[in-house]
Amino acid sequence: MSNTDTLSPTPRSTVKRLKDRARTDRADLYEILDAALICHLGIVVDGSPVVLPTSFARSGDTLYLHGSTGARSLREALAADVSITVTLLDGIVYARSAMHFSMNYRSAVVFGRCRQVSGDEKAAALQSIVEHLAPGAWDVVRQPNKRELAATSVHAIDLTEASVKMRSGGPGDDLSDIEAGGVWAGVLPLQQSWGDPVTSTDLEPGVDVPEHVRHRPVTTLGR
Amino acid sequence: MSNTDTLSPTPRSTVKRLKDRARTDRADLYEILDAALICHLGIVVDGSPVVLPTSFARSGDTLYLHGSTGARSLREALAADVSITVTLLDGIVYARSAMHFSMNYRSAVVFGRCRQVSGDEKAAALQSIVEHLAPGAWDVVRQPNKRELAATSVHAIDLTEASVKMRSGGPGDDLSDIEAGGVWAGVLPLQQSWGDPVTSTDLEPGVDVPEHVRHRPVTTLGR
Repeated sequence: MSNTDTLSPTPRSTVKRLKDRARTDRADLYEILDAALICHLGIVVDGSPVVLPTSFARSGDTLYLHGSTGARSLREALAADVSITVTLLDGIVYARSAMHFSMNYRSAVVFGRCRQVSGDEKAAALQSIVEHLAPGAWDVVRQPNKRELAATSVHAIDLTEASVKMRSGGPGDDLSDIEAGGVWAGVLPLQQSWGDPVTSTDLEPGVDVPEHVRHRPVTTLGR
Repeated sequence: MSNTDTLSPTPRSTVKRLKDRARTDRADLYEILDAALICHLGIVVDGSPVVLPTSFARSGDTLYLHGSTGARSLREALAADVSITVTLLDGIVYARSAMHFSMNYRSAVVFGRCRQVSGDEKAAALQSIVEHLAPGAWDVVRQPNKRELAATSVHAIDLTEASVKMRSGGPGDDLSDIEAGGVWAGVLPLQQSWGDPVTSTDLEPGVDVPEHVRHRPVTTLGR
């Protein structure tokens, strides 16, 4: 499959229900991945699914994961296809009837097989993961040494097969409930923000909270 | 397995890495489930994992999911074991070295087989899901009718097998990096809050935003 501007419609990445929520633009996929701080990695262990939260980063058409070389989840992720899901919850949709309550969200489900990366790609992937977690940090901290690199696995998955869904706006109530009236309907937005930085108790005096921490933009959290 | 105050240590629910982050108190599991608005449901479809975000609710020792009777994910969830994961991200841990960056989080991974529920349990489960999504709403909205109930599947999973992990506090930097000094280290907390309610454009005049929306506590989002 080639990396075009649209996402490839394989059977498992084709949205079957509530199709009006489906998006097929690659730009939508990238926006969701870039706005989220964690993903949920789904693997199959002994025939059963296991879903684990983990950090990640996107670089171009590739998504990177990392972890300890001893982590079973990463070993399993090389042996069979995985599913990597990112969800941004934007608000709660209050309806006039119980079964029309909903959520406004943006989600991406990536499918594929991981490959283990090494050398320059591994170093660049670790940089992108740290920069995704903490923009501006990489250049001011001690970078990975040989021992740390050897103890860390980095996996890559090509962003070729993915499904993207989004919901926004108010409730889709039945006409009869709208006409009946008397019940408030709308959206309660969910917002994220950074709190005040908490300095480590073991930090020596005289080191200020750096600009990239103190004024970290909230835009990376999504709308 | 009996529902005791501790979680059952089956092989797949036993935390193998970073064991100091593991919790085995049932109360910790419930606190995480109750604070989260969405879960990630992992199923196996044609041998491969699929991870989907969905709403849920806990009621006692049971977790409930719901969806359209036409949703393949819910049908698959009856045919084999599932994994249901909830993650609350509490902050970003800034370290003195790249490989010690981390996240403060609370997560729960539930394992087991879903069973389809009906009758009174189904009605109560739908109420708990709506109330988890929108506390205070159930009693003021139109409740499900026969047609809606018939079109909705509700699944239950017993909270007998689960693993809980939490990380809090500052970075675990190497002593040599701490002694080298000069790099800020600490935690940037991530906070959630409710925005201003957005009333539906099709709402008739004169219906105020109700108290349970206007003053929805942020405590349900976790710390």
